Parts: sequence; C-alpha cells; structure tokens
Amino acid sequence: MAELSIQERLYPQLTCFGCGHANAKGLKLRSYPRDDIVVAAFNPWPEHDNGFGFLNGGIIATVLDCHSGAAVFHRAHLLGMDPPPGSPLLYVTAGLDLRYLRPVPLGQALELRATVTEADADQVTVEAELVWDGKPRAAATTRWKRWRPR
Amino acid sequence: MAELSIQERLYPQLTCFGCGHANAKGLKLRSYPRDDIVVAAFNPWPEHDNGFGFLNGGIIATVLDCHSGAAVFHRAHLLGMDPPPGSPLLYVTAGLDLRYLRPVPLGQALELRATVTEADADQVTVEAELVWDGKPRAAATTRWKRWRPR
Repeated sequence: MAELSIQERLYPQLTCFGCGHANAKGLKLRSYPRDDIVVAAFNPWPEHDNGFGFLNGGIIATVLDCHSGAAVFHRAHLLGMDPPPGSPLLYVTAGLDLRYLRPVPLGQALELRATVTEADADQVTVEAELVWDGKPRAAATTRWKRWRPR
Repeated sequence: MAELSIQERLYPQLTCFGCGHANAKGLKLRSYPRDDIVVAAFNPWPEHDNGFGFLNGGIIATVLDCHSGAAVFHRAHLLGMDPPPGSPLLYVTAGLDLRYLRPVPLGQALELRATVTEADADQVTVEAELVWDGKPRAAATTRWKRWRPR
C-alpha cells in the first residue's frame, strides 16, 4: 500500500493552493518524513515558467513554504499537538526569507528538504531547500507562529 | 485609450507565471508608475486559498516578487537600461524576505506598492507591500541582481 504523505494523513481536507489535497486546482504537494528531515518531490507545471524557461520564484516560494509546513505539522503531531476543532492548522507562516541560488529547470522532478531548527509552543523555525542535480537551487528560512483565531 | 501596464509596455512577450502577459495560464499582473512608487491591483483566484479562506502565502510571494520586478524594470528603462537582445529581463530576483503581517482576504481587489530603495548597475533593492482595507498585510524586501547568461 502506498505511503500517505504528511498532507494526506494529517490534513486531507485542506484547501491550500500549495499543499491542500482538497484544492482541485492546487499543487497538491506531498511530503514525507525520512530520517531526521522531511522530503518531497515536486514537478513544476509548464506555466510555472519565470520567463527565462526556468522555474518561477513565486512557485519556489510556494512549495518551500508549504513543504516547511509539513515539517512543522509532522513534528507537532508527533508531540501530540494538533489543531483545535474548526482550525485547519496549528501554525501559520509569519516570515519567509528566501535566497535564489541557481536557476531551477522546468520539466524535471525537483527535491525539497526541510528541517525544524528551533521550536517552542508558539513559534517554529524551519530551514528548507530546493535541490536539483545534487545542488541547492534555493534556500529558505521560514518562521511559523501559532494560529489563534480572533 | 487605456494605459498600458509596465509589463505590457516593456516586456509583452514574457512568459513569467506571475507577470508574463504571454503566459496564458499565469496571473498576468499589471503594474503602473504613480508618483514615486509603482502600484498594482491584484484579484486572487478562488484556488489561491491558504486553507483558512485567506490568500495563500506563496501567491503573496509571487505577486510581490513580480510587482517589485516592475519597479526595477521601469526604473532601469527610464535610465536607458534595457535587456540585451535574446535576454528577457535585465535582472533576476536573488533574495526575497517576506513578512506576513495580517490575513489577506480572497474575493477582494488587493493593492500592491513597490519602491526601489537602493540601486547600482549590478544590484537593486526594492521594498514592497500588499495593502488591503488601508492596512499593510504583507511586506517584502527583494534583492535583484544583473542576469548574465552563461
């Protein structure tokens, strides 16, 4: 039986554009825990062009943000921290600091990696990168804060 | 006659997902110079949900990056700096530092603002924000570097 992704296992009803499997027009990212990190493969769509024939930086931001989220929610779940009823997720992104290192091809499977580097109940920090052909192509630090509905 | 956006005037053939008017499936952002800044209106699509019924952070990154680009290329054009033949744009994004300040609604016209704050021939820095209902909802600092095909 195929392994369920973090997204399909922990929040299958999510409608997020990047990682919600209940969003018919979204990217439907699938992330998996492997050893100490969380990994994903992402296949860009032809329209995800940056105008140079490489992958658009906003789409890179989208998948690194959502993939980092999978690392956050996977870790929280292991600690017994799940969102309260009626709230889709426990944390939201507060900040995204992204460095574009090298062009990223279209038409190729890309590798995403993420690791939680700091965490307490209210805030989590994740380091993530997009790798292709053995080289990091973009690196992101995301900060997550607890979502408290007003 | 309707005013042409920076994108349609300076790079109408661009296929960028966020701001390329030659990308049939892209967001086709339209940005305009106004006084000392560059502005745009953006209407998210229903699938741009973040899973909470607000705008996805990756799409916020996409439009702030592309809108900042319009400020960069508008300024460069005024200085007589245009891309060499065969190169779609003069600069590419090297870094994006984004702070998510408040939730951004779906189904509403959002305002984007951008200002070039530092520039030399090789690198440009832009401050941009997404505003709705009079309040900044996200703020970005983008760093651009000269694109040199290898």
